[in-house]
Amino acid sequence: MKKIAIIMGSQSDLDTVQAAIDILKEFKVEAEVKVLSAHRTPKELAAYVESSTKKGAKVFIAAAGGAAALAGVIAAHTTLPVIGIPIETSSLKGMDSLLSTVQMPAGIPVASMAIGKAGAKNAALFALEILGVSDKKISSQLLKHKKSMADKIKKIKIKA
Amino acid sequence: MKKIAIIMGSQSDLDTVQAAIDILKEFKVEAEVKVLSAHRTPKELAAYVESSTKKGAKVFIAAAGGAAALAGVIAAHTTLPVIGIPIETSSLKGMDSLLSTVQMPAGIPVASMAIGKAGAKNAALFALEILGVSDKKISSQLLKHKKSMADKIKKIKIKA
Amino acid sequence: MKKIAIIMGSQSDLDTVQAAIDILKEFKVEAEVKVLSAHRTPKELAAYVESSTKKGAKVFIAAAGGAAALAGVIAAHTTLPVIGIPIETSSLKGMDSLLSTVQMPAGIPVASMAIGKAGAKNAALFALEILGVSDKKISSQLLKHKKSMADKIKKIKIKA
Amino acid sequence: MKKIAIIMGSQSDLDTVQAAIDILKEFKVEAEVKVLSAHRTPKELAAYVESSTKKGAKVFIAAAGGAAALAGVIAAHTTLPVIGIPIETSSLKGMDSLLSTVQMPAGIPVASMAIGKAGAKNAALFALEILGVSDKKISSQLLKHKKSMADKIKKIKIKA
Amino acid sequence: MKKIAIIMGSQSDLDTVQAAIDILKEFKVEAEVKVLSAHRTPKELAAYVESSTKKGAKVFIAAAGGAAALAGVIAAHTTLPVIGIPIETSSLKGMDSLLSTVQMPAGIPVASMAIGKAGAKNAALFALEILGVSDKKISSQLLKHKKSMADKIKKIKIKA
Amino acid sequence: MKKIAIIMGSQSDLDTVQAAIDILKEFKVEAEVKVLSAHRTPKELAAYVESSTKKGAKVFIAAAGGAAALAGVIAAHTTLPVIGIPIETSSLKGMDSLLSTVQMPAGIPVASMAIGKAGAKNAALFALEILGVSDKKISSQLLKHKKSMADKIKKIKIKA
Amino acid sequence: MKKIAIIMGSQSDLDTVQAAIDILKEFKVEAEVKVLSAHRTPKELAAYVESSTKKGAKVFIAAAGGAAALAGVIAAHTTLPVIGIPIETSSLKGMDSLLSTVQMPAGIPVASMAIGKAGAKNAALFALEILGVSDKKISSQLLKHKKSMADKIKKIKIKA
Amino acid sequence: MKKIAIIMGSQSDLDTVQAAIDILKEFKVEAEVKVLSAHRTPKELAAYVESSTKKGAKVFIAAAGGAAALAGVIAAHTTLPVIGIPIETSSLKGMDSLLSTVQMPAGIPVASMAIGKAGAKNAALFALEILGVSDKKISSQLLKHKKSMADKIKKIKIKA
Repeated sequence: MKKIAIIMGSQSDLDTVQAAIDILKEFKVEAEVKVLSAHRTPKELAAYVESSTKKGAKVFIAAAGGAAALAGVIAAHTTLPVIGIPIETSSLKGMDSLLSTVQMPAGIPVASMAIGKAGAKNAALFALEILGVSDKKISSQLLKHKKSMADKIKKIKIKA
Repeated sequence: MKKIAIIMGSQSDLDTVQAAIDILKEFKVEAEVKVLSAHRTPKELAAYVESSTKKGAKVFIAAAGGAAALAGVIAAHTTLPVIGIPIETSSLKGMDSLLSTVQMPAGIPVASMAIGKAGAKNAALFALEILGVSDKKISSQLLKHKKSMADKIKKIKIKA
Repeated sequence: MKKIAIIMGSQSDLDTVQAAIDILKEFKVEAEVKVLSAHRTPKELAAYVESSTKKGAKVFIAAAGGAAALAGVIAAHTTLPVIGIPIETSSLKGMDSLLSTVQMPAGIPVASMAIGKAGAKNAALFALEILGVSDKKISSQLLKHKKSMADKIKKIKIKA
Repeated sequence: MKKIAIIMGSQSDLDTVQAAIDILKEFKVEAEVKVLSAHRTPKELAAYVESSTKKGAKVFIAAAGGAAALAGVIAAHTTLPVIGIPIETSSLKGMDSLLSTVQMPAGIPVASMAIGKAGAKNAALFALEILGVSDKKISSQLLKHKKSMADKIKKIKIKA
Repeated sequence: MKKIAIIMGSQSDLDTVQAAIDILKEFKVEAEVKVLSAHRTPKELAAYVESSTKKGAKVFIAAAGGAAALAGVIAAHTTLPVIGIPIETSSLKGMDSLLSTVQMPAGIPVASMAIGKAGAKNAALFALEILGVSDKKISSQLLKHKKSMADKIKKIKIKA
Repeated sequence: MKKIAIIMGSQSDLDTVQAAIDILKEFKVEAEVKVLSAHRTPKELAAYVESSTKKGAKVFIAAAGGAAALAGVIAAHTTLPVIGIPIETSSLKGMDSLLSTVQMPAGIPVASMAIGKAGAKNAALFALEILGVSDKKISSQLLKHKKSMADKIKKIKIKA
Repeated sequence: MKKIAIIMGSQSDLDTVQAAIDILKEFKVEAEVKVLSAHRTPKELAAYVESSTKKGAKVFIAAAGGAAALAGVIAAHTTLPVIGIPIETSSLKGMDSLLSTVQMPAGIPVASMAIGKAGAKNAALFALEILGVSDKKISSQLLKHKKSMADKIKKIKIKA
Repeated sequence: MKKIAIIMGSQSDLDTVQAAIDILKEFKVEAEVKVLSAHRTPKELAAYVESSTKKGAKVFIAAAGGAAALAGVIAAHTTLPVIGIPIETSSLKGMDSLLSTVQMPAGIPVASMAIGKAGAKNAALFALEILGVSDKKISSQLLKHKKSMADKIKKIKIKA
């Protein structure tokens, strides 16, 4: 089993989730990526979360939009960390996805990221930070990545 | 099995849900009332929804607050009608509960009522309307109840 | 009289409502589709709701946007189940339609679906679920439809 | 028939509507005050609006909360000016009432005031301004009222 | 002086306001149309409102977006009815314009219409309704206009 | 003329504005405090802003709630800096006041602070920062005040 | 250095943060608890985050309200996981705190929990889940805690 | 050191910030323009704010989007006036940026402008107003600029 399992509620979420996949590739950390829905395939979802937990997954990333139950339902079936990506929706612009992901009841935590692609990229980085707590290689990759972001900004010159 | 199953995500929701229970008593339609959580008891919830469906339940009523996955997860496990009551929350006043309940993805319908006690009362009435589609006794009780509401209003006199 | 009456407040809502019509066609359940407005044709609306109720309609579906009084006003004239589809609006993106549809006072229930096309599709499925309570053919069609949705998801493979 | 008809959707709205009644008393303009609901007494409401219009009412004031269809439904039955007072609600604090009142479709205008008591007071003043367009006595009363408000403010001294 | 004065806060609001102008043309009621800003030309605005009031204007229509002070400031300078059109804005979609227009303090009423073009059309119709209170010609034009709207809807046939 | 003029739209705003007055007293910078309304005393407001500007005021602080036109209208009459305090309102909790204060059109800036008492305190501090740009005594008082705030926090010990 | 560092922006946040501290006590995992502000003690905050990171902290928990920069600024100074608790605020009920915490730009992840005490409790549980990825004792404590929550719910009986 | 320092959190904000730069050019007031992030380059930001303050900067303008900590963090490091421009974001349309900028805690003021380009233009004008408090040349330029805006509006003729 790979260390990170990425689950999206619908194939159309891949456009957003790709930003997470790309970060993991950049860090050379393998992830398993699935489409599974809390609403349309609840049993497969529960089974997958439980079997992945047993087989050694370390972190779940869940992307869903609207009444986004996915991250919360994954968290219901594991005590591994679950990171939620609220997908931007056409009518309410992701405010529905955000509140459905972040406003979890006491006892079942979900770590919500920002709405959309920034959230997807950060979900991957946050999963790496979790792995980095006990994996020095990842932790030092994260430091490099952070330094490189800062360096890019420092090089920008604006002509006023 | 009773025809209506009422499920609430937390015991504290009973204060709101009581308005639904009271209506069903008034109509003398029996209901089974349970505390089961999409997040804290996901397996018991799935098992209960499936067994109730098999044993002859006709309608589910689900009350939950915050990231309110309950109604949607029930709907994931049955093709019986599921009615959602968004519980009023202390910070976001039920807007989180409402969006988590109503913004369901295509394919898995949930019927959302209003936030709070008005929604709870209406959830019961709507469940009765569903039963009334094929049960003339309930359908005629509903007509009487509606007439009686109108009569109460017609008797009010305001002194300007 | 057909079992399902679909009413939209404006002809421009048809773009959204078509998703409901398509589901009913797929299930081969006939529906009557009308443009009638709570604001522009209040008498015709009241008359139609009352006559349809008498002639044997079983469920109403109402689609309206903005100050969306349609579903509530239909519910005022019948004790049959009324399902509301909040139409996405250009300025407030359907938040106005949603609140006008879902925040019904105690006594007159309306079952709100999600904003827009997902809501329209689900309105049809929910109407079928209501009919399915006493119609085994529809109820078994719903099970098949649900299984087919799940099967589609299970076949998706994502290359990470 | 009195010139101003005030209709509230529920007796509990009187607490807010009283601010409107008080202004009309202050101006010695008589008003008819009724509890009638777009949802619970739709026929009585329609009949009352039509008969009041015929009997010489000049302006309607409508107060309702939540999915506040009242003002819009009154406007559906008359071409007299209809002024809406969105009642403050417990969960959404009147945002639902406001959007249900103000976001009317093209063709059926409703004049929305502010949420709550300020809105109720202003509904009465706005009704008087409408009458004042063709009634010099009311128009000069309004000028005095406005001057008196300004005078009160000018007398306030704040010790910094 | 024409009976209706339409003031917009910025020339770019004309795109929305045109819907009001078109209705008034259809009714052959003349209006004076100006660009005047509560923020950029406060003195000219005050002077225009006061002189128009003296010269016989009957109703003001004000269109503004964002921190839309225009309608309220006009109302500060007259006791004639002031109708506000909240302009749809690019970031907050007119929610800012709506709240700035409708949430007036007790004592200075503004009649808010819906956000955008529907609001503009209704502002004109509402101004006509105000004039119609004492002008039978306009009042009977309004009845015809309403009937014609209803007739258009009644002719629509939807093929389900 | 004192350097800072504080204007509130209603006497009831003093409860919030007191936090600004207290800061200015602490800094021994005198302020003139007035109740003047953009809606109820527009002429007195315009006259006061213009005369204060001529007499040597340096900064305006404006506190208002709801459709809070006050700060914007002051800014319309001066090119001195205008700082807005959005008052917390009972229904919309100050979101209306905030949007009415901050969403100013290009050309007429208003500096919005936070809703309520924190905003009032910061309005005074920001006015002092503006004066501090050319007044070394105030600027050094501000540094001391900032250091003292930090010192208070550093002394706090939490027993976990 | 303890494994978990809890930082709150203001002493008044302790009322909320206590729920996190209590969970950690229950799990017998020690935490360091500090009041440090991104706005009032930025240097001390940066220094503390960097020194804690070096001394072996594994996870940061940050609680702040309003323009809640705290969690994001901590994340700016470390590549350890940072969990944010949005504090409920008096005017905007924590919506400001939530958006300031969760809407982080790509590159600097913060894991947002729910607004208020449920969020605080979950912040502690999520920190434990992170530690549990490489600490079997904590991971098995989490399983027990989850089971015990479920057991409590299963024992509840509601009399309908 | 130039008198005005403009800092943006990301190079993509330049599209909005350009409106501020253009105003300053029009007024011939020089500004230093930098990309520095509270999240990605926190140390460089702190160092720049402190050195600019020492070298004679008078006003900071900060533009950031989403969880926009930038203006608040600058204000943490200086007692010079800090003006915030909330950048319009794709999902929440700048509501996140606005609340993160304006809802500052008592003690650390930030002057928030409107979301987007109008806010950027006004940030520059407000910075000039601050300088104008002690610089008569700028103050008289501002008067001319204001008069010229008004003149443009007065020349507009609308054909109704």
